[in-house]
This record gives sequence, C-alpha cells and structure tokens, in this order.
Amino acid sequence: MGIISGKQFINRIDDLHNEVWIHGKKVDGKISNHTAFKGMLHSKAKLFDMQTDPRHQPLLTFALPGTSEKANFSFKQPATKADLTDRRLATQLWAKTNAGLLGRSPDYINSAIMSLAAAAPLLGKNNKKFGKNIRQIYERAAAEDLTFTHTFINPQTNRSISFFESDDMIIAAKVVDENSDGIVVKGARLLATQGGLTDELLVLPAGGNFIDESYIYGFIIPSNTPGLKFMCRESFVSGDSEFDYPFSTKYEEIDSVVVFDDVLVPWERVFLYKDLNIAFEMTQEVDMFTLLSFQSVTRQVVKTEFILGLTQLIIDAINISEFQHVKDKASEIIVGLEIMKSLLLTSENQCQHNTFGMMTPEKNALNAAIIYYPKLYPRLVEVIHLLGASGLITLPTEKDFLSDNTRPYIDQYLQGAGSDSLERVKIFRLAWDLTMSSFGSRQTLYERFFFGDPVKLAMSLYNGYDKTPYVEMVKELLD
Amino acid sequence: MGIISGKQFINRIDDLHNEVWIHGKKVDGKISNHTAFKGMLHSKAKLFDMQTDPRHQPLLTFALPGTSEKANFSFKQPATKADLTDRRLATQLWAKTNAGLLGRSPDYINSAIMSLAAAAPLLGKNNKKFGKNIRQIYERAAAEDLTFTHTFINPQTNRSISFFESDDMIIAAKVVDENSDGIVVKGARLLATQGGLTDELLVLPAGGNFIDESYIYGFIIPSNTPGLKFMCRESFVSGDSEFDYPFSTKYEEIDSVVVFDDVLVPWERVFLYKDLNIAFEMTQEVDMFTLLSFQSVTRQVVKTEFILGLTQLIIDAINISEFQHVKDKASEIIVGLEIMKSLLLTSENQCQHNTFGMMTPEKNALNAAIIYYPKLYPRLVEVIHLLGASGLITLPTEKDFLSDNTRPYIDQYLQGAGSDSLERVKIFRLAWDLTMSSFGSRQTLYERFFFGDPVKLAMSLYNGYDKTPYVEMVKELLD
Amino acid sequence: MGIISGKQFINRIDDLHNEVWIHGKKVDGKISNHTAFKGMLHSKAKLFDMQTDPRHQPLLTFALPGTSEKANFSFKQPATKADLTDRRLATQLWAKTNAGLLGRSPDYINSAIMSLAAAAPLLGKNNKKFGKNIRQIYERAAAEDLTFTHTFINPQTNRSISFFESDDMIIAAKVVDENSDGIVVKGARLLATQGGLTDELLVLPAGGNFIDESYIYGFIIPSNTPGLKFMCRESFVSGDSEFDYPFSTKYEEIDSVVVFDDVLVPWERVFLYKDLNIAFEMTQEVDMFTLLSFQSVTRQVVKTEFILGLTQLIIDAINISEFQHVKDKASEIIVGLEIMKSLLLTSENQCQHNTFGMMTPEKNALNAAIIYYPKLYPRLVEVIHLLGASGLITLPTEKDFLSDNTRPYIDQYLQGAGSDSLERVKIFRLAWDLTMSSFGSRQTLYERFFFGDPVKLAMSLYNGYDKTPYVEMVKELLD
Amino acid sequence: MGIISGKQFINRIDDLHNEVWIHGKKVDGKISNHTAFKGMLHSKAKLFDMQTDPRHQPLLTFALPGTSEKANFSFKQPATKADLTDRRLATQLWAKTNAGLLGRSPDYINSAIMSLAAAAPLLGKNNKKFGKNIRQIYERAAAEDLTFTHTFINPQTNRSISFFESDDMIIAAKVVDENSDGIVVKGARLLATQGGLTDELLVLPAGGNFIDESYIYGFIIPSNTPGLKFMCRESFVSGDSEFDYPFSTKYEEIDSVVVFDDVLVPWERVFLYKDLNIAFEMTQEVDMFTLLSFQSVTRQVVKTEFILGLTQLIIDAINISEFQHVKDKASEIIVGLEIMKSLLLTSENQCQHNTFGMMTPEKNALNAAIIYYPKLYPRLVEVIHLLGASGLITLPTEKDFLSDNTRPYIDQYLQGAGSDSLERVKIFRLAWDLTMSSFGSRQTLYERFFFGDPVKLAMSLYNGYDKTPYVEMVKELLD
Repeated sequence: MGIISGKQFINRIDDLHNEVWIHGKKVDGKISNHTAFKGMLHSKAKLFDMQTDPRHQPLLTFALPGTSEKANFSFKQPATKADLTDRRLATQLWAKTNAGLLGRSPDYINSAIMSLAAAAPLLGKNNKKFGKNIRQIYERAAAEDLTFTHTFINPQTNRSISFFESDDMIIAAKVVDENSDGIVVKGARLLATQGGLTDELLVLPAGGNFIDESYIYGFIIPSNTPGLKFMCRESFVSGDSEFDYPFSTKYEEIDSVVVFDDVLVPWERVFLYKDLNIAFEMTQEVDMFTLLSFQSVTRQVVKTEFILGLTQLIIDAINISEFQHVKDKASEIIVGLEIMKSLLLTSENQCQHNTFGMMTPEKNALNAAIIYYPKLYPRLVEVIHLLGASGLITLPTEKDFLSDNTRPYIDQYLQGAGSDSLERVKIFRLAWDLTMSSFGSRQTLYERFFFGDPVKLAMSLYNGYDKTPYVEMVKELLD
Repeated sequence: MGIISGKQFINRIDDLHNEVWIHGKKVDGKISNHTAFKGMLHSKAKLFDMQTDPRHQPLLTFALPGTSEKANFSFKQPATKADLTDRRLATQLWAKTNAGLLGRSPDYINSAIMSLAAAAPLLGKNNKKFGKNIRQIYERAAAEDLTFTHTFINPQTNRSISFFESDDMIIAAKVVDENSDGIVVKGARLLATQGGLTDELLVLPAGGNFIDESYIYGFIIPSNTPGLKFMCRESFVSGDSEFDYPFSTKYEEIDSVVVFDDVLVPWERVFLYKDLNIAFEMTQEVDMFTLLSFQSVTRQVVKTEFILGLTQLIIDAINISEFQHVKDKASEIIVGLEIMKSLLLTSENQCQHNTFGMMTPEKNALNAAIIYYPKLYPRLVEVIHLLGASGLITLPTEKDFLSDNTRPYIDQYLQGAGSDSLERVKIFRLAWDLTMSSFGSRQTLYERFFFGDPVKLAMSLYNGYDKTPYVEMVKELLD
Repeated sequence: MGIISGKQFINRIDDLHNEVWIHGKKVDGKISNHTAFKGMLHSKAKLFDMQTDPRHQPLLTFALPGTSEKANFSFKQPATKADLTDRRLATQLWAKTNAGLLGRSPDYINSAIMSLAAAAPLLGKNNKKFGKNIRQIYERAAAEDLTFTHTFINPQTNRSISFFESDDMIIAAKVVDENSDGIVVKGARLLATQGGLTDELLVLPAGGNFIDESYIYGFIIPSNTPGLKFMCRESFVSGDSEFDYPFSTKYEEIDSVVVFDDVLVPWERVFLYKDLNIAFEMTQEVDMFTLLSFQSVTRQVVKTEFILGLTQLIIDAINISEFQHVKDKASEIIVGLEIMKSLLLTSENQCQHNTFGMMTPEKNALNAAIIYYPKLYPRLVEVIHLLGASGLITLPTEKDFLSDNTRPYIDQYLQGAGSDSLERVKIFRLAWDLTMSSFGSRQTLYERFFFGDPVKLAMSLYNGYDKTPYVEMVKELLD
Repeated sequence: MGIISGKQFINRIDDLHNEVWIHGKKVDGKISNHTAFKGMLHSKAKLFDMQTDPRHQPLLTFALPGTSEKANFSFKQPATKADLTDRRLATQLWAKTNAGLLGRSPDYINSAIMSLAAAAPLLGKNNKKFGKNIRQIYERAAAEDLTFTHTFINPQTNRSISFFESDDMIIAAKVVDENSDGIVVKGARLLATQGGLTDELLVLPAGGNFIDESYIYGFIIPSNTPGLKFMCRESFVSGDSEFDYPFSTKYEEIDSVVVFDDVLVPWERVFLYKDLNIAFEMTQEVDMFTLLSFQSVTRQVVKTEFILGLTQLIIDAINISEFQHVKDKASEIIVGLEIMKSLLLTSENQCQHNTFGMMTPEKNALNAAIIYYPKLYPRLVEVIHLLGASGLITLPTEKDFLSDNTRPYIDQYLQGAGSDSLERVKIFRLAWDLTMSSFGSRQTLYERFFFGDPVKLAMSLYNGYDKTPYVEMVKELLD
C-alpha cells in the first residue's frame, strides 16, 4: 500500500470511529468535521499530501525494502550519518509548514516505533514473540503509513514518592487479568496528545511504580479497540476565523486522558510484559528517546527560526530597531537559535551505531538541548511580549476589518510604521496566538515539559554523564 | 446623591448608550446584557453594593464635607497617615473580592481624579478656570459616585524617536480646532480598559510629542459625548460557564482604542491646554501617579497573596510538599509577597504632605515596587506552571462533570491526593484561567506594562533618585 | 566600668594572649601589632572611641539600670518600638564608618547575648542555674563592654544526611566528659570570624546531630580558656598600603576554625546542656536570630547605599550616564536598596513583644531580606564589574603615583572624564577591593551564606510561614 | 631557525630588555626572574618545550613551506577543514596544561598575525608595501617562533559618544608625525596582557575615533622599540607557594597600559595607515576575529571541562551528591559545556574559504559562543561558591601543613568525606584560586569582557545576522 494521501488519512481516521469524549459528549459522525479536531487533521493531511508532491517525495519517502512501495521517511531505520541528515531535513520540511507548532507531527512517534523495532532483539530476548510482535507492528505501520499517539505517564493524583495505589483503587492503568487472547488492562494514563485522532496507540511503562509487575507492559493497539476511551480537555480552537486565530484553527492538537476500561490487548500486540530487566535495559539501550529528541529538537529549531522572523517583523512594523535594548533582546533569540542548531548538528555529526545497528545521534548534545529549550522558550515568549507590548492587545478581528463602519478607523489608527493596518494586525495576531491565546499558553507549557519534569531531566543528565575525563584532567594538574 | 448601589451603577451605564464597537458591530440595547461586558459590570456592581453593607460602610465610605451624604473612600483627599491606611485597607477589601484581578477597580482612576483636584491651584495657575473645572468635576464625581476610564498613551504606529506625524496624517489624538464652546479633538488614543463601560473618560497628555502644543491637553468628558467611540478588542470571556472560566466570566475588563471623531470638549471640561510648563509641573508635583501606584501596589499585594494561597492548594492537591525544589519555588512567592508588602507599608509610613496639602505616600518605595512587580509577576505565573504541570492540561469541563457518561471516569482518574476530583479540578481551573487562558495571558501582559515600558521606568527611577547622600558617604571614606 | 575606649579595647585583647595560629605559627607578642589583625582591631577601636564622642554618645550608649554607668547600645534590651529604632540608627552609624564591611561589628553578637539573656526564664526552666548563668554573663558583658565571636556550625567533612561520626573519630566538637568543675569539650567548630580577637566566645548547638545529646550544649567562655585554639586561614590583607588596599587593610576580619582540645567549660559558663527540648524551644522562642537579622539587614542596607554611591562615582568618572543600559543597571541597585530598606523598616514597624517581653522585629520581613540579599549582593558586584570594566584592571599602585618616572604618564593617560587620575584611581581601587581582591571575594561569599545555606533558608521560610489566610482567601473565591 | 625551546624563549625575552614598569620601578635584570612574571614565563616555556616532544610534535608543529624547518601550528594558514580540526586539537592540548587559564597562550595572537598575512592582498590594495610588510612580518614570526601581545582599545577616560580629544590633550595613541623612516606615535593604548613579556606588539585601530585619520594605523613592532613603555598593574601572584596559590604562581599574565612616547614605527612595520576604507574592510573580510574566537572558544571549552571536573571533586570531597539541588547545579555546568562544544564544532564543520582562501570557521556559531560564555562563566563561578561554601574559607596554607603544631589538627578536623585533609585542601585551594583570589576575580572579569563590551557584542550580532530567511518563513505562513 505505501504512502497515503491526506484524503486517505482523513477517511481512515473517520472510519475508525474511535471513542472520543469531549465536553461530556461522545463524538458522533465524522471526527474530521468536528470543530475541535478538523483544523489539526487537515493540517496533518497536508503533510501526507506532500509525500506525493514530486518536489518533496525524494526527501519525504524511501523505498520499502523488498518492495516497490514507498514509505514515510520516519520509518526508515538510519544506517549512516547521511540517513540522519535526511531525516533531519525531512522533519524540518514538514515542521516549516506549521512553524514547528505541530508537536506530534506523524514523524514524532513513528521514530519511536522504528527505534523499538530496531531493538527487537532486546525485546525478544526472553520471549521471542515479543520481538516478532514489535517487528510486525512496525512493518505494517511503515507499509500502511499508520499514525500513532502515545502515553508514557500516570495520572497526577499523588506525586509523593511514598504513595502507592492500593489494589482496590486503580487509578494508573495496570494489568488486571490475562488469558489466552491477551492481557486485560484497567485504569488511566496521561497524556495522549491527538488521542483518538491517530490510527493506533503506543503504551510504555510509566516508571516510578515498577515495584508491582502489573505496571510493566508495552503494547500498541488500534485506537478503536473496545474499552479504549479518550477523554479530551476542552478545545483551544478559539473560533472559526483563520484570520483571528491563525494557529489554533490549524494546529490545536488536543490532549486526552486515556481510559482503559478492561481493555483486552491481544498477545500479538504486546512486546513487553512483567519483565523488569528488559524494561530497564530499554531505557539504556533502545535509543527511542534519542530519536524522539532528535525529531523534537529539529522541530524546535524551526520554531525558534519562526520566532526570530516574527520578532523581526514586529520590530519593523512599529519601527523599534534603533533601540539598544530591542537589539539586545532580539540577539538573545539569535544566540538561542545558534545554540539549538549547534547542539542538533553536533549530535548528528557525532552519531554512532547503537547496540542494534541503528545509527544514533550523540546523546549528550541532545540531552543538553532538551534541558536548555524549556528554559529558552519561555524567554522567547517573554521577548515577544516585551517588544509587542500594547500591539498584542489592540487587535481588531476579521469582522472589524469586514465592517465598513469600523474598517476606516482601524486603517487609520492601527497602521504600522512600514505596513498597513491589515499587515500589521496579521503579524500581531500571529504573535498573540503563539504566546497569549489559550492555544499559545498550552504551547508554552508543552515546551516547558516536553521531555518531562525539568528537575528530573537535570538529575538524569548529571547521573548519566561521564565526568571521569574531566576529573582526571584536574587530578593531573593537582599533581 | 452620594454612594450608589450596584443596580444604580448598572442602570446608569446602560442608560448612557455609549458608542462601543466590538467585532465590527455597535453594541445595541443594554450593554450590561452583552456577553463580553456583563460579567465585569456585575462584579463592579458588587463593589458598589458593599458600600451599603453595614459591615463595610465605615471603611468604604466617608462623609462628604458639608453634607450628610456619604461618598466612596477613594474620593477622600488624604490628610493624615491614618487616611492613607484606611485607603489601603479599603482598596484591599475590594481587591479581595476579585483576587486583585480587577485592575481598573473604580478606586483606581478615582484616585487620579482626587489627586488632580487637589492640585487645582497648579492647574489653575495660569488660567483660573482650569483649576475651577477640575474641582467641579471632582466634586460631582464624589457626589454622584461616578466611574472613569482613562487614556494616557498614543497609538503604537511608529515608536522611532525621530518620528513625528505630519499635519495631514492624524493618528494620535490632537486638538484640531477650538471655538467658544470648547476644543475639538481628532485622532485616537490608547488603551482605555473598560472603555465605554464607565461614566466618564479622563484624558491626559501622552508625553513624547510635546513639540506641538496641539497635543497638550487634559480633560474629562462623559463617555457618551458625541463623536467619542470605543473600539474594543475581542472579548476574552471564553464561555458562559463560571465553573470552566471562573475568572474571565467575572473580571474580563476589555480594552479599547478610543477614537475622537471631531469630538467637541466643552471648556468647562478642560483643565489643561497648550501650557507646556503646567504639563511638565504636573508630572513633578501632582502626585497623581503616586496615588495610582499606591492603589495598584495594594491590589498587587492582594493578587500575590491569592497566588500564594492557590499555589499551596496545588501543592496539597497533588501532595508535592515533600520536594525541596517545590518549597524553594513556593518560598520565592513568599519572598515576593513580603517585599511588595514592605514597599507598600514603607511608602505609607513615610508619607508626607505634598505641595497641595495632600498626604502622599513616599515615592521611592512605590517606584521600586512598580519596577519590581513586572519582573516578579511573570515568575509567579511560571511557578504555577512548573508546579501545576500536567494538571493544568487535564482539565475536564462543567459538562464533563454533568454527564453521567464521563463523570465516573473523572471522579476516579482525576481525583487529588487529599481532595476529590471536583475540588481538584476547581483549583486547577482557577490556576489555568489565571495563567494560561487568553484572559490570564492578558493579565500577565498587563502586569508587565502596568505603569508603562519597564525600560523607561528604570531610567526614570535612576534620573529622579537622589544619589547624593550615598556619593557623599563614599567620598568620606575616600578621604 | 561601663563603656571602654578603643585603646582599652586593644590593650585588653592584647593582654588575653589567646592561642591564635596563622601560617603554622602561634601569634606571639601583641596581636594588635600583627599585620593580619591590626587593621581590623584598630577599626573596631574607632567604634569604641565613638562611644565617648559627645556627638554620638546619646545614640551609641544607654545608662545601665541601677548604675550611673553607660553601656553600649547593643546590650540594651528593647522594650519599645523606639528602642528598636534607636538600635537600628546606632548600628547604622557604626556601619557607615566601614561601608557595612565589618560583618562582625561588636553589636552583632552582643545582640545575641542580649537576646539569650532575655530568654533566661526558658534556659533556666529545667535548671535554674542555666538561667542565672546567662544573666550573669550578659550583665558582665554589658558592664565591661566585652566583645564576642561565635561558632554555630560543624566542620564540613561529610554533608550526607546519613553521615554520623563514630565515637572514636571526633570531628565536630562534643562533650566528652563532665565533672564537678564543668564539662569537657573536644573537637572542632566552624567558622569563628574574628576568632581569638574578641574577649569571649559564644557556642551554640550546630543542629543536625541532635541524635546524640553530647552535641547539645550552649556556653560562653573567655577566648583564652586553656585548650581553646583558633586556627586562622591566611590573611587577605594584600599589603601595607591603605591607598592600594583601602578595605582589606582596615576590615579584614579573618576566619578561624575553633579547636577545643579537651577544653574545660566551667559550670557557671554553661546555659544549655543535654536538654533537647530546650534546644528546640530556643530556635522557636528566643528570637536571637531575629535580632541578629535585624542587625545585619541594617548593615546590609548601609553596604548597599555605599555600593550605590560608588557606582555613581564610577559612572561619573568615565562619563557613561548617557547609556540606557547603564541607567538600567544602576536602577537595579536602587530597587534593591529600596527593597532592603522597606523590609527592615517594616520589620521594625510591626514589632511585637516576644514571650520574654523583648520588643522583637517582625520575622517574615526579615526572613525575606535574608533570603533576598544573598541573591542581590552578587548582582551588585556584577553591576560594578560590568560598569567598571577595564577600569578595574588598569589600576596603578601608590608607588606608581609616588614615582616621578611613572606619575606623569598615569596623570595623563588614566585621568577620568571629570576627575584627575588620583581621584579616578581611588574610586576604582575601592571598587576593586570591594569586588575583586581576595578580601572582596570573601565578602561576596559571606553575603551569599550570611545566615546559612540558601536552600535551607528557603525551605525554612516555607515551613514556618502561615499560608492559611491566603488559602482561605482562595477557598472563598472557589465557593 | 624554526620552533624554539622553552629555554630559548626565556632567554630571548630576557635579552630584549623591554621597558616594563611595575610598582613605580623599571624592571632591571632578567625579567624571567621577577616574582611577578617568572611563573607565567615558565608556563609558556613549557608550551614551547612540548613542540619538541615527539608525542606532541606532529600536532603542535607543521613544516614551513619550502624549508625543512618546523613551525608552530598556529602559524599554519588553514586550507581545509582538517587543518581547522588540527588547529583546535593543538590549542586544546596546550590549554589542558593550564586549565584554559592562559588567555594569551602564544597561539592566540599568532592566529591574528596569520589571518592578517592571509589578507595581505587587501592590506596592500592601495599601497603594495603594506601587503608586503605584513607578509614579511608573518614569515619571520613563523620562522623564528615569535610571540606577540596586542592592544586594540583606547584608555577609558571618557566613554561618552560625544567625547573627542582635543589636539593638545593626547590620551589615546595617535600618529603625531611621519618622516622618511616611519611614523611617530604618541599616547596610550589598552590593555596589553603580557605586555613587555612577548617579542613583539601588534597594534590595530581602536574604533570609535575614526573621525580623525591620525588614529587609523596598524603595525607590529618589537617590544623593545625605543619609547615603548609597558606600565603594569600590580601582580596578582599572591605568594611563592605553589600549594597555596596553584594558579596565580603559574598563570598570572599581568596586564599593562602601553605608552607610546614618540615611538618611531619604521615603515616596513606598518601595514595600515590613514586608509579608512581598508580599515573598514578589514573588519568585514579579514576574519582575524573569527580565528581569535576559534582559539578562545576552544580554550573556554577546556576551562569549562576543568570546572566540571573540579566541581565533581568538590562534590565527592564533602559527599553532597545526594542532594537534588547539587545535581541541578552541576548539570548546569554540563549543559554549558555541551553548548560551548557544539558551537565550536559546528563552526568548524561549517567552515568556508574566505576571500583570501583561508579556511574559516562559520561565524554565527562562534559569535553566539562569545556572547554566551561571558554570561555562563560567572554562573560557573557562582556554582563553585554555592557548592564549596565554607570549604572555600577554611583553607590552611602550606605552612600549616608543614608545622607539627598545626598539622595534626588540620588532618583531623579538615579531612574530607572520601579524602584526607591534604587532598581536600588541594581541591578547595584550586577552587579558591580560580574563583576567589585576586587572580581568580581577574579571570572572571576577563571572561566577561573577553571580546569586548557585552552590550556591543549583542548589537553587533543582531546587526550582522541575516534574518531574511526567517522573515520569509513567517511571511509564507501569513499568506
């Protein structure tokens, strides 16, 4: 089958009839018509359509081994540095269509599926079927251009390190039964972005509660598996007008709590089960997070480039480039961009084959990037606030422009220094939707937590970093 | 007439039929019924009702001199330190009803009107009528419990210091004619919060374009003066549910561009005109900004107290008080609160009579506060983000709670450590609406710029601060 | 006897022949002649001389109850707010003579002795003698104008929370024996600033190792008690020239490790022993730290004023006041100064009598100050670096000025914008010695840790702060 | 002649008898015996000796074209990416011997000389001799292994942008005469580090006063040219003991004001004169600063590695690795290191030939690094302060260890968790001399200003950065 078109993607998602709840109601009919979801689904559809565009196909697809079919670039297991470069350029091409705002572009979780499949020898070490399962899931995904969401963490109920759920109070999803068909899962998991809007769902252990083996499982199931429910938060699409809400009308990805209501996960969908050793080795050797980081740092570079461009347009619109502090703030964005780019390129240049033969970007540079960006991004937002100032508030709407009663006043009083009112308002609307709308604030929160709690990321970097050569350097000087 | 009730307030505003435009349409009918405005108007109405509540009347009102009428506390010209203390306590009482979110509580601009009236001798120095005008406006305001909005700045068009508008391109409002009835004003001004939702409008020179005396004017006119238009931004009331949007449904103040379409300002409404000297002396001696700062720092203290309480509720809800970094972040809020409180109390304690006999809080401490808070507040927001984490995203709506289909899942999976799901969600909804909704982001932007461009505030503090005694101290040590 | 003169102070310290070690040698002869110590001792002597200066005596002394003797202000137990005000003004008067650099001005630990004596009822609760002892120590101190150093912490050996010393490896000082004469103490304590340079030594429990009651003790002994050794770090007096080293030649306080070599502490010198309850209640009720904070925040305000003056002199010397970022940085100092002043004045204004009738400054504001200043001070240093720039490096010495060969070049090439080379160099030498010499860096480290580990201070503030009223405020809005 | 040994270097410098003034006296006799200079000269001597060590020679030297001589790596004009890699590795090898503290390692200014020589076509564009001069100077430098210092800025006298010296008040060095032998220069320049301690001196225009062509000149002269004086600041070598002052005894580079007392600069030493166009084109095309940045960023990476190793040794010494905030602070160092490394490697990987055929590292990444490091470095220092705490003060000296009277106490009371007192003290002495001694503070100031005023660097980055592609990206999304 191979790569699909945008239309095929939309139809397939519509046909799944996943159980998606929003505002207390179950979504009926075509989910792609629903106000909360249509913008994002159609933005993704455009990504799929690019695969068949001759200008982009060479970068966005590859030939599936042993077939004449093409598949999406993100399913290609990198074997050389050039493969990583291509992967970066392809992610970048897609990200540029959405200013890096589509955090869960299909290539994101596809990269996880690919990495897991590469690690089939590990997953199948103690149980051959598990290795075979992940390979088959991966191969079908690549062949059919499937999309995925995922859930890696537990509900937030009680974060005390001494808290454990009792058996009669299931909150975090766990295995409650198993039979010849598969395992039965009950409970909830967080935080499936695009939950119910993808073909399938990837579930991995959440960490922290490994004390009980019923929490140790890894599987991938279709989004319409019986008993699987996606409970969405409210939509941050603020309205219908693409003029007024240029981003939320297109890239609002929604987030959902995933409820497993005694979901039967067939054995052929399981690739990890009650094996603490494998669960631990996965975190060390699979490099799934390395590939996820590579994708997201690439996306964040594009987003930062976009913010630099937007900042420059704001500066020009109200003619503030002569102020030293304005240049100083803009230069902070430039320095941040150069840092992110360099960390990304260095991780790519220093790539190595991992245990399973997958060409893997260097981790330290990527780990630095995923700790650095959550601190940088809120500052980028702040710079836009500080430069945009009242321009971020005096924002007429599309209807104000369409009305003959209000338009003349807007044209006169809200013109920019080198732009008419329409151009100026468009620029500031972008800035507002990026940094101040409910959609934009959620973007900020997401970048803060993209790879988890910043405190834990920092501790993990320290723990895993080889400090020996530097300690030795000091010892040599001490002697 | 004296103090009014909430109902009287609403009726009076409805009866004005101010020319308010929103989404390309003029507001028809009762403005207090309009979705965009009703919440805030009714929140203000409650403030008025408190004036007649026997528990609060002693603090919230005073006897108008020479009458048996009561008037709102904010119209009382402070003569003693105790007066300032009462003023602070009254502002605080009002602010606590809205978590300090109502930036333009009536006492805010009332304080300006009162300060200007106290400075009548200055305003009338070169033209006695101007002094008389401001006194009369003030006296009627106090007697009738009028409310005001204001506009102090020009449109953002071109901020270059070398930019001046040509005569045939009026953007910033200026006097284009004068006759026996008054002066005629044309152009636009920013940024009237609650524009069109108050009885009257205070207009002061914007600074920066004093080179042309047609920009030097000060007046107060009824909001329904012919030719006066308020062009609103879109409303950030996100919906009808007070459960879902606990703040925006009540405290969305709206902002508007004020358009003067050849507005005739009667002479008896003018208190400054073409007199550069008086305009300059006003900035030095009137202490209007001192009183405005005193009001808003008081409000900001309440807001910070609210944020501390909210943070503690978040900590308890998900049981994270055992983490050192959590306590560290919460302690930042405490330190910020203590600093703001101390600056406020010190300004009060070191009050002095100004040139016009008004007891005036000490300025340096207040100036430090208005530079400090724009840096503190975004950090408070950040702390809430960092502690709230996924809890700020997994937020069911009122309808989710009302539906029998979804409620059981919510109750089970979104419960807190020491609270049920309903309590927990209420807490996080508050946090979301304060820091992440379009309403909340606008609050953050407002605190950043409450008294203007932070760069200019810092320069102004440096320029105006008496550094001599400290230079002398160093010189003594040098010798 | 009452207040002493500077000369009496020096002679008394010389006569003690305390066992002070520096650079591997025991100090012989008059300690006040030793290069490492003479500057500071004579700076303190000047403070004592001020007591007899008629201009300062009213503020710096008080009449000892029941006598005609005068005593130093710091021994006066405050009973009224006016007493606290006087105490602050007196500390300020002393601090201004040394730019706030003398961290252990006599009034510092005197305040602790006074607070402990006020709490005699608590200390004597379970053993009347202990209460009597502290009163007698205090009374003699006041009557004889004694000076003190102190040690409150243990050596840094191993900071792991699971580390405890074994019985055969005494590092932290502990009681190893007791007899009819007193208790015998062995081990070391940190970090006696001015150790061996005061009349007596105050020792309090270090916290953290209360698991063993041999660590629970409080006593005050003469600095020349047999077996008591002060092991000094090297001196940061960089040379003899007061021109070159304007601060280190006068205010280098030295720090020492205190070694108890089986020191017999007579019973009449003990006021706490093996009583965990009293040790704990002391931390809650004695307010010793409150009074210490009040003294040091007062001193830090003076230091910050000095830094503001110095910064202004740098700005003038090289004529950089026209740059916006220069004003911005200077305004940071102003804001910091206003904050510290306001916290101090608020703590004074909101004073209350403590359990023992001592008028005590409000704690929250002081606690905020002692967390805030360790973050502010390094920034003040940074601002001086950023404004001083190369001027902090191109610094000729006194000998360069005295030489006819070099002076003409210096006069020509190192002149300032509005000052000759001598004035200019003096200003920058001050700045260098404050922020860059070994002496200056130690000042920075001291301000970072003045009241201990910043992490612990923040946690302690959070734990002790009453958040209830703010939580209630939120709950009211939630309902 | 080719590469020299350390001994040859020392002898040559001694034989120059440069006119160096310190503490009002001219240095007589062998400068390499002078306390202030000997440590650094011998540290440099070791670098030269490494050139003849067979293990290092391949990396540290190259064959001079057309000869059998070897020359130092830094004189090699890079033609390929591999050349840049070798250059980086060689700089790194040298820097590791001094923890990156020798800011003016010979390769630093050698890189400038090499870059200028590569740009001979530009320098000789309007006057062929100037091109020839710089080539000859370079060739002799490479052939004879000469060392250089430089001066690029003017005295700090008056930084106002409207300040210009009058003709009768020469402060900044200018050409006051010219004759058939050369040009005559009078005035002062800043800030020659190692001034008078190198073979020759590179002088370039200072910028800012180009309004007068007498300030436009570039030349290189021997350090012992008549009339050339180096006026040193005091030495920050704190004493003789390498134990006590492990860094200042070896790497104190001294700084000096350079005085031109009617110095005759022979024509054959001049390569720029009164040609404003060339002076401007130099800043755009020569890439001297690019190569200087490449060298110093390489050195800063080594310094940061050293700081990471040192921090880890501190953590181990007092056993604080279990604290979350300790790991958090250490992880900041790691992130900073990864960022600096990535910026460096990216600049190398994206190298391009410049106008003159020199392979040149990419500038944007390097420019980001030289803006980032001045902000990072003070934080690294701060982390060492925060983790080292009292350990940075309780520091016995070599003499304390050598004395039988004090050693036993030190051994017992200042031992570390996993180290004896000697090891522990050595570690903390390193940390102190790096971050707190006069030497260490000067290092901090130097890193803050290594490439000049941070404000100007940021403005310059903004001005020179091509923002067009990012503006275009936003415009595409706007349409």
